[in-house]
Amino acid sequence: MMSLLCDDTVYMNRCIELALKGGGTVSPNPMVGSVIVCDGVIIGEGFHERYGAPHAEVNAIASVADQELLRRSTLYVNLEPCSHFGKTPPCSDLIIEKGIPRVVVGCRDPFVSVAGKGIAKLLGAGIAVTEGVLEAACVKLNEAFIKSHTTGLPFVSLKLAETLDGKIATSLGASKWITGEAARMEVHRLRARYDAVVVGEATVRCDDAELTVRHCSGRNPLRVVLDRRLSLPVESKIFNTEAPTILFASSAWEGLEKAGLLRERGVTVLFVREHAGELDLRQVLEELHKHGILSILVEGGSRLSASFIRERLVDKIYMFIAPKLFGGDALSSFAPLGISIPDDAVVLKFETPRFFGSDLLLEAYVQSL
Amino acid sequence: MMSLLCDDTVYMNRCIELALKGGGTVSPNPMVGSVIVCDGVIIGEGFHERYGAPHAEVNAIASVADQELLRRSTLYVNLEPCSHFGKTPPCSDLIIEKGIPRVVVGCRDPFVSVAGKGIAKLLGAGIAVTEGVLEAACVKLNEAFIKSHTTGLPFVSLKLAETLDGKIATSLGASKWITGEAARMEVHRLRARYDAVVVGEATVRCDDAELTVRHCSGRNPLRVVLDRRLSLPVESKIFNTEAPTILFASSAWEGLEKAGLLRERGVTVLFVREHAGELDLRQVLEELHKHGILSILVEGGSRLSASFIRERLVDKIYMFIAPKLFGGDALSSFAPLGISIPDDAVVLKFETPRFFGSDLLLEAYVQSL
Ligand SMILES: [Zn+2]
Ligand SMILES: [Zn+2]
Repeated sequence: MMSLLCDDTVYMNRCIELALKGGGTVSPNPMVGSVIVCDGVIIGEGFHERYGAPHAEVNAIASVADQELLRRSTLYVNLEPCSHFGKTPPCSDLIIEKGIPRVVVGCRDPFVSVAGKGIAKLLGAGIAVTEGVLEAACVKLNEAFIKSHTTGLPFVSLKLAETLDGKIATSLGASKWITGEAARMEVHRLRARYDAVVVGEATVRCDDAELTVRHCSGRNPLRVVLDRRLSLPVESKIFNTEAPTILFASSAWEGLEKAGLLRERGVTVLFVREHAGELDLRQVLEELHKHGILSILVEGGSRLSASFIRERLVDKIYMFIAPKLFGGDALSSFAPLGISIPDDAVVLKFETPRFFGSDLLLEAYVQSL
Repeated sequence: MMSLLCDDTVYMNRCIELALKGGGTVSPNPMVGSVIVCDGVIIGEGFHERYGAPHAEVNAIASVADQELLRRSTLYVNLEPCSHFGKTPPCSDLIIEKGIPRVVVGCRDPFVSVAGKGIAKLLGAGIAVTEGVLEAACVKLNEAFIKSHTTGLPFVSLKLAETLDGKIATSLGASKWITGEAARMEVHRLRARYDAVVVGEATVRCDDAELTVRHCSGRNPLRVVLDRRLSLPVESKIFNTEAPTILFASSAWEGLEKAGLLRERGVTVLFVREHAGELDLRQVLEELHKHGILSILVEGGSRLSASFIRERLVDKIYMFIAPKLFGGDALSSFAPLGISIPDDAVVLKFETPRFFGSDLLLEAYVQSL
């Protein structure tokens, strides 16, 4: 029976499983898992556990009891082994030194210091390298890391909760608890997987939202507040010390005393350009990238979501759909997008939906804008 | 291995499978399948094939080669066997006559001439009866038949196609082809399963819709047009002879000459009350019930869908969701419903969604209104 299962795909799947254990703690590093197989048996496993800690390959190699076996083993890893000195020595050197004869790689590392150099080093040492096993899944696993390194911008996801008819609040603006408990729990798990959570001033004001991770294990992501005119009260819960917070305001308001008061509370206040009454979202993303943020989850309501879409900055949408109808006079999930003919629609690609309680979570990737 | 599978649930599932083969042809009769099992082996099967034809039990019994085996067999049927003389003699009499010692029933027949009398007759003859096997699935299979007989109104489903943000047309009103080919094919299959398709005057005018079943086998359902002021041109495609058509107009317009012209074309023209500029939809449903219509599929757009919802007449919604965004200024899937607080939302229950091409079909039952 075992022989049926012993193929590269199965071991790469295991790498992905292991890699995910580092979700939320390795950023701004990628999630990496590694498996070492000798004569059809897994003899070592490891994953990158947190930023600054040893790489997956190092942990996998160290976990092998009889190091002599490495000389006839295959090492599986979802991301190309590194070839540069970072916080740790290069993994490709270790693989060569240990005499591992074959390496199977899920996808290349886009990081400019690696970017094929790791694989080239292995090949140069006479190691057999198989590339691209479960490549799509491996790319998706580290989509934030890859986007960050290839574009200089964080991976941007929107999170919304709407009724089946696309509404996020009734005609009178009431909106609390559209979705049930299970969906709200999943939002907390989502937050823990992102480096930062982004909200607009209106959402903070309405809900006095704290935007921390509760009801599940996981660190608190950075909180990012977009408050163009520095209008939020300094006492807002979002400025508490539960998690680090960055506030973006318009350079037009740079002189305001409130910036100093917020900084005293530990809030990082940054000023960016504004256009037509809105903060320059691209500049916001560039600043976040400089702060080492690979991924953001925008939880900002219909206006902010529409602004990110209009600026063509969105990679993914998490849409929770509640089994309810509010009707056509209720508030739509997105503010106007300026689309007048169907062919100009924002095109998405749906993932397989999942239920959380009686609510549906439909994930969608933005295909074109 | 066989023994693991040989239980009442498995045979009842087979009954449902067989029953579905009569979908679209047995109405206004229910869909019924029957299986006969002797010593753990299926020795006979049958289903109700079309209105007026023999019942499932008759077909199943006739399919058994050695009729002597019936004296130690179990007969499975998803709906209570009939006890009255309709188009055919009562099935319960036949079961008794054949000496079948055990009958397993999915759910009771709500039809007033049966309603427990079939089961009582079997019990009275000393037959062992097991009731309620896969009852929920059996009730759902004939939900239209059951609703029709218990309420005197047809089962009402809405079909809509919206973007992920709940829009059915862009801000300029353009809407054609929101969903892809596979979803449109499924709409044709849906129509073939309903007794009637209902549209409003606006939809007919916009699309010059024909509302026939194409691209798949299946009969054409009755077409029902709601045209309060008899304003549609007599030449509209919907009045062609491809399928029977009923037009409902307001009694206020009963004198119009156009009614006669439409009747000459074979269209049945009926007049009902109107309130506040809308046809009395309950009266429309009552009339359709009188015409033997068990189920209707409303394909009428946002206004008609909202009217049916507001009048609390909807049982089910088929929502096709296209992987697109149109934005907040586009046309919402439902016209206003008069809901101002979240607790007053129309509450639904989602079924497991299915993909048709890149579009998602999410079926939802209305729980309360
Ligand atoms: Zn490394
Ligand atoms: Zn019968």
